[in-house]
Amino acid sequence: MTQNIYDDPGFFENYSQLPRSREGLDGAPEWPALRALLPDLHGRTVLDLGCGFGWFCRWARQNGAAHVRGIDVSERMLARARAATEDAAIVYDRADLEELALPRSAFDLVFSSLTLHYIVNLARLLAQVHDSLHRGGRLIFSVEHPVFTAPSKQGWRIDAEGRKTWPIDSYLDEGPRSTDWLAKGVIKQHRTIATYINTLLGVGFSLCHLEEWGPSEQQIASRPALADERQRPPFLLVAASTLPG
Amino acid sequence: MTQNIYDDPGFFENYSQLPRSREGLDGAPEWPALRALLPDLHGRTVLDLGCGFGWFCRWARQNGAAHVRGIDVSERMLARARAATEDAAIVYDRADLEELALPRSAFDLVFSSLTLHYIVNLARLLAQVHDSLHRGGRLIFSVEHPVFTAPSKQGWRIDAEGRKTWPIDSYLDEGPRSTDWLAKGVIKQHRTIATYINTLLGVGFSLCHLEEWGPSEQQIASRPALADERQRPPFLLVAASTLPG
Repeated sequence: MTQNIYDDPGFFENYSQLPRSREGLDGAPEWPALRALLPDLHGRTVLDLGCGFGWFCRWARQNGAAHVRGIDVSERMLARARAATEDAAIVYDRADLEELALPRSAFDLVFSSLTLHYIVNLARLLAQVHDSLHRGGRLIFSVEHPVFTAPSKQGWRIDAEGRKTWPIDSYLDEGPRSTDWLAKGVIKQHRTIATYINTLLGVGFSLCHLEEWGPSEQQIASRPALADERQRPPFLLVAASTLPG
Repeated sequence: MTQNIYDDPGFFENYSQLPRSREGLDGAPEWPALRALLPDLHGRTVLDLGCGFGWFCRWARQNGAAHVRGIDVSERMLARARAATEDAAIVYDRADLEELALPRSAFDLVFSSLTLHYIVNLARLLAQVHDSLHRGGRLIFSVEHPVFTAPSKQGWRIDAEGRKTWPIDSYLDEGPRSTDWLAKGVIKQHRTIATYINTLLGVGFSLCHLEEWGPSEQQIASRPALADERQRPPFLLVAASTLPG
């Protein structure tokens, strides 16, 4: 089973303080870009992998989805998601995404925000996702950008000329990276952009759009600390589809 | 017109000394990976954009291609290509790829090695390429990897812990980068991986394969200096196709 860091009390407490935890989707600066990739949800059946507090599940229902299923490995997050939801058309389930078995041809959209970089066996999960979608269905997900996850020691450096840079090493050496993010020793899986893309293509998806997300000028104007994120993108957003019916 | 650095005498002299110029395709460490993306060429009509000395054009003919057309902007390179070729089924033409007009449905394969990062109007050229291919045709190309081209000042740094790193900045700021590579002030266009991919998808291609090329263990064993290239990939290889017929 993947490290379930979200049920670590210290991590959970710190995670709960993040803008994206307190404010929901609008607290995540990449949300407008991710939302722009979504299809019309009216009458659709939606699955959210790594649903956390359920913000996206509730948003999907408010935007017309007929049925929404949220899956997460964290009991603490699911407890809060259930407490925040009064809607019989939203179902939350606890499951380890490494072992997940999904029904076939059951969903129109699978969504996943900042979750797949925790998964060791990505090909297995994406094959499950592919087969769980109707023909012409969509997978929209975000992960930490491979340039962000690659370094053996992640962080900014100021060089001799005063430039702020993000030094890369180990980009082609895929596998676990341990970082001290909200708690010590949080394990995420580094893989290259090519591996994300070729794994999708290999299980039968077509690629529709790739985005290396960085803040807009408007976002930087209202939150100047975001400016660094244009030096190297923090997130990779991907839209893929199954064959049309 | 794009800077025609290959007709600069000093650049041309230095370029001519590179292993890939003297030994041809086998002097390029990424060639085995690029070759693996190629379709069977028997009886096919092939276009090489940025054909240089014509190594690939001749290889394509030796591997069964029926007709091969090589295009380059450099008179010096084309002169050497023509001198090295005795084959009426290979035609070399001089053209600026920024202004290129190609015949429609004329080719089975368009190939391009380390050329497209010189092009300012990539969308225009890729639309021409798309329309020049038969249904089910292939585009296979390599470019300098965006992580390689991004920095405002490209180069390796040794950090305080002795790690060799490639510091990134300006990744999301696309546009010209001036480097001193074989001559002073060589201009290449930095664009993100997402821009390469979305431009392909936007003109009608499907993505077949993406490769962030780095040397294999075997290549490093025989050329230890290549080891650094695993810290950050130097080349991006792409295979795309038009809709099947």
